[in-house]
Amino acid sequence: MDDSRARAEALDAADPLASFRDRFVVDDPRLIYLDGNSLGRLPKATADRLARIVRDEWGRELIRAWDHWLGLSRSIGDGLATGLLGARAGEVIVADSTTVNFHRLVTAALDARPGRQVIVTDRANFPTDRYVLEGLAAARNLEIRWLDTDPGDGPQLDAVNAALDQEVALVTLCHVDYRSAAIADMSGITAAAHDVGALTVWDCCHSIGSIPVALEAAGADLAVGCTYKYVNAGPGAPAFLYVREALQGELRNPIQGWFGQRDQFAMGQGYDPEPGIDGWLVGTPPILGLAAVEEGANLSIEAGIGAIRAKGIALTQLAIELHDALLVPLGFTLGSPRDAARRGAHVSVRRTDARDLTRRLIADGVVPDFRAPDGIRLGFSPLTTRFADVWDGIARIRTLAS
Amino acid sequence: MDDSRARAEALDAADPLASFRDRFVVDDPRLIYLDGNSLGRLPKATADRLARIVRDEWGRELIRAWDHWLGLSRSIGDGLATGLLGARAGEVIVADSTTVNFHRLVTAALDARPGRQVIVTDRANFPTDRYVLEGLAAARNLEIRWLDTDPGDGPQLDAVNAALDQEVALVTLCHVDYRSAAIADMSGITAAAHDVGALTVWDCCHSIGSIPVALEAAGADLAVGCTYKYVNAGPGAPAFLYVREALQGELRNPIQGWFGQRDQFAMGQGYDPEPGIDGWLVGTPPILGLAAVEEGANLSIEAGIGAIRAKGIALTQLAIELHDALLVPLGFTLGSPRDAARRGAHVSVRRTDARDLTRRLIADGVVPDFRAPDGIRLGFSPLTTRFADVWDGIARIRTLAS
Repeated sequence: MDDSRARAEALDAADPLASFRDRFVVDDPRLIYLDGNSLGRLPKATADRLARIVRDEWGRELIRAWDHWLGLSRSIGDGLATGLLGARAGEVIVADSTTVNFHRLVTAALDARPGRQVIVTDRANFPTDRYVLEGLAAARNLEIRWLDTDPGDGPQLDAVNAALDQEVALVTLCHVDYRSAAIADMSGITAAAHDVGALTVWDCCHSIGSIPVALEAAGADLAVGCTYKYVNAGPGAPAFLYVREALQGELRNPIQGWFGQRDQFAMGQGYDPEPGIDGWLVGTPPILGLAAVEEGANLSIEAGIGAIRAKGIALTQLAIELHDALLVPLGFTLGSPRDAARRGAHVSVRRTDARDLTRRLIADGVVPDFRAPDGIRLGFSPLTTRFADVWDGIARIRTLAS
Repeated sequence: MDDSRARAEALDAADPLASFRDRFVVDDPRLIYLDGNSLGRLPKATADRLARIVRDEWGRELIRAWDHWLGLSRSIGDGLATGLLGARAGEVIVADSTTVNFHRLVTAALDARPGRQVIVTDRANFPTDRYVLEGLAAARNLEIRWLDTDPGDGPQLDAVNAALDQEVALVTLCHVDYRSAAIADMSGITAAAHDVGALTVWDCCHSIGSIPVALEAAGADLAVGCTYKYVNAGPGAPAFLYVREALQGELRNPIQGWFGQRDQFAMGQGYDPEPGIDGWLVGTPPILGLAAVEEGANLSIEAGIGAIRAKGIALTQLAIELHDALLVPLGFTLGSPRDAARRGAHVSVRRTDARDLTRRLIADGVVPDFRAPDGIRLGFSPLTTRFADVWDGIARIRTLAS
């Protein structure tokens, strides 16, 4: 292969998304930022919007701004649904954290399958999902049937099938593995779960904004995901929550809050939820975070998830080729699928001293993430990462690891 | 009485907190803003801090900023605890919404009193609390024993006592009534609950930052409250959650998330919570909102909750005197306690056309809140409301109501 920087530069020159990088704040052009899948960069429009919302709306309109703030959780959710999640308007809201939303959806799914005693999930799942499930299983005296997937492969349909029977209430997995970027077969696994009468909750934290999610086509029942990764909505921005329209009449939001109440400001006796997805709102949503989700999502929607996906494949493909050429001789192994169709927008390269190497890389101006036990995770954010960044990052790893 | 504007101006001239108004953004000096107990004004320091956190921390430090963001929920909680809540460092965190935190504390309290079947609360409670309780009662097949307090009086100790027996798991009430500002006897009611072995959850949304809360002295077990009212932290800013230190070993956070995990970034198998209040964190906290809580709280702490309380009493006292002189002749009645010791920092004035009057007041540049069925709620935020604003607001009501 051609492992020259010139090749990476040529890819940048031909990149139809290249101009999007100018829509983000890039103060330090020397920084090689390969962690946009932990915290995406700051869109310039977001900085402006937040300044306006603080000074003009909070500062000047004060309480009267709630007239337009009230609809944000839903309108932004509609944008995510139709633009990034392959869902319909009225199936997604933005509010609370991924963990709180995951807890709510799992609780609702378990409530909808009374008598079934088993949750199927994976030891490779993101920690917060596992911890929530352990808490709910203990509180309800349920069994967790653990898959023991190699994170490099992601959950396999045959392993899920082997775990399924009529006792299973719920199958819940990450759509894209947080270490390897392995993509789960959402459609196949959902169909298998439905065959035994179980529901599915999909954690889309690492897929929203990086690959097409296609919730409707996959038949997904329920899903959550964060917005501060590929959606570039900033630290602790609120998460999304998806409930398939056909289930909205059946499932009940287990945290009954005043933002889900039909006539909220009547402040009446008795919880009477809004029909549809609006009944899944709980407390007062974080307005600054919501505005940042809207601006970040608008950039991804403008670029188009198809173009984002194409660039994500090209970025990870270049990284894998450079890994093979430059890092394998130094004892690295690839921790991500080689099949582009089964890989999201990050790549894990593994060596036993990955923790120390990550520390040294960051000190040297290259920012990836360490993921236990031995992975350097290189996150490529198609709207902001250049092919030259991929080259520079891998070259720096080679230098420090030699 | 002297119902002249000159008297109000004299009170402003002698007000030791008068200079704090200059620490807030006041773009429209003609606006009479009497709704700081729904959404407090924007501190200038907050506008600056948010601009810095967006541009310098998110924009420039990117993921590396989490090194200092990680401690914010706890350090800001410590400030609220010792500065405003009469609690100790290590008893309060800031995260999530009031509703989510209330749901968590109620769940934990019920879990800690297995076999007890009754929750005592009040039909006058803030709606979101009632809705949460109704949901949990239905899910757990519990009885809610409703007090039926006149909101103008607030929950009375003898009524609570009459509802208490060995079946009661939990007593939960608002510290300051959201309509009338009636202050509940936190200390007496908590002691009565403890006498029958029940726990207490206090909703301090309308007390934090307006009156001394004294959680430790009152023996309170658990408490929540929002920060966007008198703490001036902005729309949807995260709420606080308090767990008395003596209960931290006994109660369990029912939403087990990765921010509560002892060695969070080991991402290991099995939930192993941080000891103490840090184990009550759940998901990724909203960093912009947290920073706004810190700035807002710092202003209240600098002013001193004693001085804030003294001005709150003086503002409401003036409002009541003006109500009696100017509005009673027009058919208004007072919806708040006349005894200053039993009244927080807002006042409700009642007439059957309150909804329409509120609408007309807002159109005329006076912003109170309507609260069903017939209250115009005048909120006085001691750091920003002038005595002249009280006079102007009541005078405008008289004009429009005549």
